[in-house]
Amino acid sequence: MGRIIECIPNFSEGRDKAKVESIVEVLRKAEGVKLLDYSSDADHNRTVVTAVGNPEALQAAIINMAEKVYEVIDMSTHEGGHPRMGALDVVPFVPIEGVTMEECVEIANNVGKVIGERFNIPVYLYEKAASASHRENLASVRKGQYEGFFTKIKEANWKPDYGPSEVNVKGGCIAIAAREPLVAFNVNLGTDKVEIADAIAKTVRHLGGGLRFVKAMGVKLEDRNIAQVSMNLVNYEKTAVYRAFEMVKMEAKRYGVPVVGSEVIGLVPMAALVRSAEYYLQIENFSMDQILEKRISE
Amino acid sequence: MGRIIECIPNFSEGRDKAKVESIVEVLRKAEGVKLLDYSSDADHNRTVVTAVGNPEALQAAIINMAEKVYEVIDMSTHEGGHPRMGALDVVPFVPIEGVTMEECVEIANNVGKVIGERFNIPVYLYEKAASASHRENLASVRKGQYEGFFTKIKEANWKPDYGPSEVNVKGGCIAIAAREPLVAFNVNLGTDKVEIADAIAKTVRHLGGGLRFVKAMGVKLEDRNIAQVSMNLVNYEKTAVYRAFEMVKMEAKRYGVPVVGSEVIGLVPMAALVRSAEYYLQIENFSMDQILEKRISE
Repeated sequence: MGRIIECIPNFSEGRDKAKVESIVEVLRKAEGVKLLDYSSDADHNRTVVTAVGNPEALQAAIINMAEKVYEVIDMSTHEGGHPRMGALDVVPFVPIEGVTMEECVEIANNVGKVIGERFNIPVYLYEKAASASHRENLASVRKGQYEGFFTKIKEANWKPDYGPSEVNVKGGCIAIAAREPLVAFNVNLGTDKVEIADAIAKTVRHLGGGLRFVKAMGVKLEDRNIAQVSMNLVNYEKTAVYRAFEMVKMEAKRYGVPVVGSEVIGLVPMAALVRSAEYYLQIENFSMDQILEKRISE
Repeated sequence: MGRIIECIPNFSEGRDKAKVESIVEVLRKAEGVKLLDYSSDADHNRTVVTAVGNPEALQAAIINMAEKVYEVIDMSTHEGGHPRMGALDVVPFVPIEGVTMEECVEIANNVGKVIGERFNIPVYLYEKAASASHRENLASVRKGQYEGFFTKIKEANWKPDYGPSEVNVKGGCIAIAAREPLVAFNVNLGTDKVEIADAIAKTVRHLGGGLRFVKAMGVKLEDRNIAQVSMNLVNYEKTAVYRAFEMVKMEAKRYGVPVVGSEVIGLVPMAALVRSAEYYLQIENFSMDQILEKRISE
């Protein structure tokens, strides 16, 4: 497959189809870049895009896409249910094949520098690209949102990594990251009590003393009348899918609640599932190079 | 990935490196074909090659390879520990991506016709390409081997599908197939008693009343001093890896023997392992299109 990175830009428009299309079109047309998916949410007034490509082509395409975003989106009139700090809100770069995390950190810096200087946007780097530990977590970076940044940006702790020290009124600010691939994995419980899902979520997640790379919350699936432990596995190499799954099962036992199923949302790296097959099948000395499709695409 | 088939030709030379290389070289140099693996066994005096490619390119390359095989190998002086019926012994075609089994049957027929006519070799089609049910099993087709075919070929039941009705003294005969991908999967037992592995193998395999697409036998791993149930899963879509694994575990219980591990030998289609992860993680409504690498390579 050569050298491949993934980028999942989120921008603050999810209602005006013509505007959304004009932005997505930049990635669709870019040479060396493949648009894998995009979905808009009208309540959130936000669109999430997934694209892959070689590092050089994808960086260039994201900068071209940013230009379009700053042309058509005006944050001074933006409303939506999802937290956001700018027109182009977050841009995480993820190493997929033949690229290291260090290179993705470099890419986040390159793109941040250009967006800061060319479009006059304050840039914050987060996750693996963060310039300080208090900036690693996106929720901390974005706290206060677009409206709050007009004062937050003046705090010593929140000087931007690139770009001006004043919020761009039309474009807002931007958060750019290098991070591991994320697996959205939900476990369905044989109960309608969301408080049980919530209690389990609190024990399996990092915040509650659980697994290092698990974020989790309890949600109710109204249509099926069951509760669900909804998780983000933010490093499936170190906190494997099967480990999160087995831990939910184990905790569910205390309530006499069975696990009735699970869901993988969106795209998932092959290794995340293959590693779980290895665990359950007790496979010794397996190498990902034994996967036929991997060998074919090399 | 486009349209991809796999071919695993086996030829009757495993000692003379120069000869082996001259044959393999044909596939290595072929446009639109990728040589994934080859290994020679001196005791067997035989080489097994794995190559993939688009159907047109791979067919052409296999015919060119056959020409080289018939030039350098002489069956009238061949000796080796593995059953064989010809210089180019078996040529199975396997659908991998965007190609149906029916198309592979057609390819097996096309290649068989050319090899029969151009090189004057009796051709037998087996597995999904078989022209009669008694020819489906390779062991039945190959029974008697090169030496036995001089009389076997005269039997009404064993008239070749293509080519002459007399054995080619130098090149022998050939068996060509279309078949499902095969998964070589072994389960290691916490005992040194090979008779327990043997007894388990007999219950899980099709022959003994077990799973439809499992071939199995017990073997001893001398270096680790443990017994192993060695299996070929000849249709992993219908007889899943996890099902064979769980059945071995279940049967091992009757002897109080634990399963201590397993091995996947050689290449394995991604889906074979992903389907097992789906089972153990109880994933609902999963689609292989959710695999990131699959989407990238499309």
